[in-house]
Amino acid sequence: MNAEIHPAQASRQDSKNLLQRFKEVRNNSLVLTHGLSDADATVQSMPDASPAKWHLAHTSWFFEAVILNRHQGGYKPFDETFHFLFNSYYEALGPRHARPNRGLLTRPSLDRVRDYRAHVDSHLVQLLDRSEVSHRVMDLVELGLNHEQQHQELLLTDLLHLFAQNPLNPAYRPPVPLPYSGATPSGPAWVNFTGGIHKVGYQGSRFAFDCETPRHQTLLQDFALASHPVSVGQWITFMQDGGYTNPLHWLSDGWALVQKDQWQAPAYWEMRDGQWWTMSLHGFQPVNKTAPVCHISFFEADAYARWAGHRLPTEFEWEVAAQGVDTNGHFADCALYRPLPAAGGGDKGDGLNQMFGDVWEWTSSPYMAYPGFKSMEGVVAEYNGKFMSGQYVLRGGSCVTPADHIRASYRNFFYPHQKWQFSGLRLARDR
Amino acid sequence: MNAEIHPAQASRQDSKNLLQRFKEVRNNSLVLTHGLSDADATVQSMPDASPAKWHLAHTSWFFEAVILNRHQGGYKPFDETFHFLFNSYYEALGPRHARPNRGLLTRPSLDRVRDYRAHVDSHLVQLLDRSEVSHRVMDLVELGLNHEQQHQELLLTDLLHLFAQNPLNPAYRPPVPLPYSGATPSGPAWVNFTGGIHKVGYQGSRFAFDCETPRHQTLLQDFALASHPVSVGQWITFMQDGGYTNPLHWLSDGWALVQKDQWQAPAYWEMRDGQWWTMSLHGFQPVNKTAPVCHISFFEADAYARWAGHRLPTEFEWEVAAQGVDTNGHFADCALYRPLPAAGGGDKGDGLNQMFGDVWEWTSSPYMAYPGFKSMEGVVAEYNGKFMSGQYVLRGGSCVTPADHIRASYRNFFYPHQKWQFSGLRLARDR
Amino acid sequence: MNAEIHPAQASRQDSKNLLQRFKEVRNNSLVLTHGLSDADATVQSMPDASPAKWHLAHTSWFFEAVILNRHQGGYKPFDETFHFLFNSYYEALGPRHARPNRGLLTRPSLDRVRDYRAHVDSHLVQLLDRSEVSHRVMDLVELGLNHEQQHQELLLTDLLHLFAQNPLNPAYRPPVPLPYSGATPSGPAWVNFTGGIHKVGYQGSRFAFDCETPRHQTLLQDFALASHPVSVGQWITFMQDGGYTNPLHWLSDGWALVQKDQWQAPAYWEMRDGQWWTMSLHGFQPVNKTAPVCHISFFEADAYARWAGHRLPTEFEWEVAAQGVDTNGHFADCALYRPLPAAGGGDKGDGLNQMFGDVWEWTSSPYMAYPGFKSMEGVVAEYNGKFMSGQYVLRGGSCVTPADHIRASYRNFFYPHQKWQFSGLRLARDR
Amino acid sequence: MNAEIHPAQASRQDSKNLLQRFKEVRNNSLVLTHGLSDADATVQSMPDASPAKWHLAHTSWFFEAVILNRHQGGYKPFDETFHFLFNSYYEALGPRHARPNRGLLTRPSLDRVRDYRAHVDSHLVQLLDRSEVSHRVMDLVELGLNHEQQHQELLLTDLLHLFAQNPLNPAYRPPVPLPYSGATPSGPAWVNFTGGIHKVGYQGSRFAFDCETPRHQTLLQDFALASHPVSVGQWITFMQDGGYTNPLHWLSDGWALVQKDQWQAPAYWEMRDGQWWTMSLHGFQPVNKTAPVCHISFFEADAYARWAGHRLPTEFEWEVAAQGVDTNGHFADCALYRPLPAAGGGDKGDGLNQMFGDVWEWTSSPYMAYPGFKSMEGVVAEYNGKFMSGQYVLRGGSCVTPADHIRASYRNFFYPHQKWQFSGLRLARDR
Repeated sequence: MNAEIHPAQASRQDSKNLLQRFKEVRNNSLVLTHGLSDADATVQSMPDASPAKWHLAHTSWFFEAVILNRHQGGYKPFDETFHFLFNSYYEALGPRHARPNRGLLTRPSLDRVRDYRAHVDSHLVQLLDRSEVSHRVMDLVELGLNHEQQHQELLLTDLLHLFAQNPLNPAYRPPVPLPYSGATPSGPAWVNFTGGIHKVGYQGSRFAFDCETPRHQTLLQDFALASHPVSVGQWITFMQDGGYTNPLHWLSDGWALVQKDQWQAPAYWEMRDGQWWTMSLHGFQPVNKTAPVCHISFFEADAYARWAGHRLPTEFEWEVAAQGVDTNGHFADCALYRPLPAAGGGDKGDGLNQMFGDVWEWTSSPYMAYPGFKSMEGVVAEYNGKFMSGQYVLRGGSCVTPADHIRASYRNFFYPHQKWQFSGLRLARDR
Repeated sequence: MNAEIHPAQASRQDSKNLLQRFKEVRNNSLVLTHGLSDADATVQSMPDASPAKWHLAHTSWFFEAVILNRHQGGYKPFDETFHFLFNSYYEALGPRHARPNRGLLTRPSLDRVRDYRAHVDSHLVQLLDRSEVSHRVMDLVELGLNHEQQHQELLLTDLLHLFAQNPLNPAYRPPVPLPYSGATPSGPAWVNFTGGIHKVGYQGSRFAFDCETPRHQTLLQDFALASHPVSVGQWITFMQDGGYTNPLHWLSDGWALVQKDQWQAPAYWEMRDGQWWTMSLHGFQPVNKTAPVCHISFFEADAYARWAGHRLPTEFEWEVAAQGVDTNGHFADCALYRPLPAAGGGDKGDGLNQMFGDVWEWTSSPYMAYPGFKSMEGVVAEYNGKFMSGQYVLRGGSCVTPADHIRASYRNFFYPHQKWQFSGLRLARDR
Repeated sequence: MNAEIHPAQASRQDSKNLLQRFKEVRNNSLVLTHGLSDADATVQSMPDASPAKWHLAHTSWFFEAVILNRHQGGYKPFDETFHFLFNSYYEALGPRHARPNRGLLTRPSLDRVRDYRAHVDSHLVQLLDRSEVSHRVMDLVELGLNHEQQHQELLLTDLLHLFAQNPLNPAYRPPVPLPYSGATPSGPAWVNFTGGIHKVGYQGSRFAFDCETPRHQTLLQDFALASHPVSVGQWITFMQDGGYTNPLHWLSDGWALVQKDQWQAPAYWEMRDGQWWTMSLHGFQPVNKTAPVCHISFFEADAYARWAGHRLPTEFEWEVAAQGVDTNGHFADCALYRPLPAAGGGDKGDGLNQMFGDVWEWTSSPYMAYPGFKSMEGVVAEYNGKFMSGQYVLRGGSCVTPADHIRASYRNFFYPHQKWQFSGLRLARDR
Repeated sequence: MNAEIHPAQASRQDSKNLLQRFKEVRNNSLVLTHGLSDADATVQSMPDASPAKWHLAHTSWFFEAVILNRHQGGYKPFDETFHFLFNSYYEALGPRHARPNRGLLTRPSLDRVRDYRAHVDSHLVQLLDRSEVSHRVMDLVELGLNHEQQHQELLLTDLLHLFAQNPLNPAYRPPVPLPYSGATPSGPAWVNFTGGIHKVGYQGSRFAFDCETPRHQTLLQDFALASHPVSVGQWITFMQDGGYTNPLHWLSDGWALVQKDQWQAPAYWEMRDGQWWTMSLHGFQPVNKTAPVCHISFFEADAYARWAGHRLPTEFEWEVAAQGVDTNGHFADCALYRPLPAAGGGDKGDGLNQMFGDVWEWTSSPYMAYPGFKSMEGVVAEYNGKFMSGQYVLRGGSCVTPADHIRASYRNFFYPHQKWQFSGLRLARDR
């Protein structure tokens, strides 16, 4: 969060703007769950995933536990039991319902969770609609909204996983014709970057997560990035060339998983009549060879890069390259919820395509604290810092990320075995 | 099933009676799920349990797969995919959805499953409402109704398990005052029986499962049964006397579970402010000391009996004793769904109390084939026979068993570690 | 044990005989471990198996803990720590080293365990060599010797399992030419028995385990037993006929194991160049088609019987049939340690062949207490009784059983999934 | 390895020196296993550990598979089966015995493995004793010797783990009085270092592993290191202050392990009569409060640092600081095999103490490839690169590391949950 010195109270215009944004972001969560049944919103398809209802409730709990309970005198929680049920992992805020059991909560119902949201919203609106709102409260609201946007993406990701377990292959949204089909890229072009000392990390007056700070210098060597993410067609070539059967392409821990879980393709892929299909939020569909490959783990991304004779970029190479790129791209706001081929039929020439949107790009960087990192203060201190082991950084956002949630310094992170995110890769190489 | 020789077609009156019974049993499943949300009916709380929606669909699938698809020309299945989704374990009927994943089916919805039921019902009614119905079809319908009654009990049992995982302790039905509170029994009286050759197993013209046949002779020694099932108050005495901490009371496999799963009480019990409470279908309630203890495993029943210096009855001792007892008792038809104290405040004198209803009684008998046992013919051959290893027989029905589903020869069976059934025990001893 | 009334002290001749037998049985354990390295004797190849060194030490511990510590005044244990290390499962005798960790005890060494044996032996000899030995002590010594014989068999069984894990396929003993090769039996002949009330269980003046008593009446129907155990050649026919791929032959729990553990043949079998081989105590050898099939689980035995259209015998059918058969057979005393074809090239005519020795025969009977069963008294009460759940009875002894250890009433018992015993089957059918 | 250009053949003096070194290193492995029984050398106490016999054989296999089979014409392997048995993880060299089953190989015996060593040694001596030895062979021999030294450390580490599982607490070597007892350090002094661009990684003419190269620039900020590793006494303070009970000190994955595995102290610690003791290679001993704490995981090291208000150093901070420090220290060559207090009673003034030897020091750096990293060529390419995920770097060597095996650029690596290494920590902080 913004650490600059400022007066204790925000300006009236600032709090009005925030109020407006609050309403929009909160409403978007309801839009995303439109059409889901109570059952759809309740079931948890694996311990890594959470029910849609839980996402709706937990994001409200966050506003209640972090803001209303502490910064609005006389606030009465909507339901005392929700404090236990919808805390995710905040040890400082007391015990909580075990994560793998989130899907056993058939009560409260989806309707009651919506009532909970309305209750929290009305109090937040009251709080923000005052003549004087403290910067601390505004910062926490901003954090809560970014938190909610993260859960909006997870909600879609988790729903896809749930529906993919159902032999009926239900579609979250009806299939629509794609805006453009995409030409097959003629192979990756390389975009060169010069090494030396670069600045990375967030600095500025808008919101960023604590893990993106402090902005600091990093030393890079000369490098190149591929112009596009790896496509489905390229991935099929890797598979046909024994990508999943030759241990020499793989990290040792990755190869152990290939064998144990019998990985043969990205998540949700299924061979039917000699053709690859995939489960998507629009139901069961043929794969699109010109779109970026998606739903691969870090281990798969790394194996592909090794097979291709290249490597994954570090997160700082990616960030330095992205600093000059507009964050426009294909995000959740289009409501297509699937990676698309590069606009314009492919290669833009010598530039970088699809750095933002479509698929998160795995980097080779473990998720770690930046030099001088400090967690946020207070109960939100646990937000990011305690997850800084065993995970890898992904960059750039995806087709299920809200468009205004992304920036060049944004760090997403997942375990190297996880496949259910909208995750792909872009190659890098030394120069 | 009845194996007697009879004419190929049933009488019109018989088929009318069966039709009437068909409507009642099928309707009862709907009554039992009245008030459940789509989510309540969808979630699976452990691999041993099934969702309510699945019970509703599977019992309909049984009629469709076993009768309509084979005995009604031109029948079109309601939905082809349901054949895969709602087959339980019939290998001869093709592949099926994996049991532990039953709870991932948010679709079809509860409403659509009700439509499925209506579709199947209308065709069954058509089939039974003809002038001529074959005995084979009538036998299969009768089997399907008994199958459905078994699932009605499981539906309630599984719902209790689901709601017990929810910290909100939702009540399936609102609590009601008990009809009578029960006096503390003055300790078990023993009812004596004389050994020798006895006949056990079903023989007659009504329905019985294949595993209850053939009726055959068995040789018993003199024995006695306790007049009542072991009560909650007696169980608390066992617990206070170190029942769960002294390995010498326990079978070796049972003691391993006591330690691994930290058993300290029957399932659903919780100590709160020095008093034992239990989760029930009426929500969280104090235990009732005069009612039969419930939700115990075979291993616990066996340990109690050893601690008490007695033993469990064999299934044939139980059956011989029960042959002279009316099957009246406290069943699901009262809609109280919890074990009650013996009517009349306890001991009836020298007779056997509560042999039927309230709680299933664990016997010491492994579930095995009777001499000369033959499975039912055709696709229903897998109904019972393949489960005849590793399980123990329970007798007598419970407070969640339909009243007209029980008889002296009825054999229920579960694994010795399972606690979630409405299972208790009655002591036996040699004379 | 013999429960007859007798004077407090045994006769001098009786104790001399027992002393002689003591020396022989104890020495045999040393003979069996001759040629094993310290390492061979130390490693535990799975939790169900124990190291040879542990068998040697535990059988000595039994004499020490049950007899010397309690019945010889002033006895000093060889090593106080051994009381903890070598207790198997006697809860009443205090805590003990965890079973799955038995193979981590590289110390004490095999030599020191042999010293332990010598120490215990010298004190036992002293105790038995007195003019007056109590019946209680003599009974316990007899129990200890039978206990040791059980472990002699397990020692060989466990060694085979250990050596079978080693790609070098070490031979416990050098291969020897078989005494006779065996003709292919012309198919099972059936031997008929008449039902009615029979007596089963042990009664007499020699040793028997508590679980074989009390002798009691049982009611049988007419039945027939196959003249021979099922042979390797017959088993191969079963395999070729899809025995391991058709779920309809299998109990449900058995089929789950076939799939999970990918059972395709008896334990230790391996297809090499189109021919089945098996690991044996004489190293890797071609299977012998005329010998009884061995190293099969109960689930496999049951599936075979169902496939063949017959069934397994109950333990009482087996015992009644065996009561008229001499216990001569092929036991460990020949030191061949593998099942052989029936002597005389096969069928003896209308009689029963190989009831004793060669392979233990699975019965359909769960291991349960006989009516009126009482455990032995004192610290040995845990010997058998607490294992009476989940296991099945096997009868008749095997090629690794000491010849004088077996009798018609002898009950061995293992879990239905266990394959590493020298276990086979004999078919039965109703008449 | 040294990548400099050089003539194809090494000088005669170089190969003589290498031959001498070869004999010394190889002999040291035998010295380390002196006094072990065949059983001690055979058992595997957990999947992460290997038997001593396996270490002896595998290091010989390495010379055989990588050098003799490929670079000495006409070489005949000692035993063809060993190629399968003693390959560790080289996929390119064919299939291999499964790692968790290494302890099941009671054959070959320890003596035969020693014969194997002698066979390989004699051929290696022959190869090196020629007038002309290629640089490629010399490089591989040097690699083999460094490989062997790594296994010498693991052999001791794994033996400690094995003996610690034995309730007899056997001592690998008899206890000896410590050379000096160590004063309690007065608290850590901080040693300051200046940031900027530093060079890290190995460059030179001696041996280094591929993962230490290429030498490259790194950008550091100003930092300070503690003068000493954290001591046992300081660790006890951490424990007494709730170190293992407050989740806020811990990374999320670490806290999950604290709860699951009930961590309460470093590995091998046991409270006895109010005093902490620890299992060591000299048997069960009281902990030494002035010695560095040992046998802690990365998660524990990280939690301690957070509790202390500081952090772990990065591997480059550590290396830059160590570049000016002599590599003298307390290593395996003293044969004490336990961490000692700093020589001279503690604080040396403002310098760094015990950077080398005593305990490996966890850094905050995940084990990753350096910029421009290339694996070694040929079959040894799998040596390091494929392990570059999920592990953390440790620096400085320990009391069981050979003294001439360490250097400032040396990178050891283990998973963050592993406790059985001789691993401790040194605090760092920003300036």
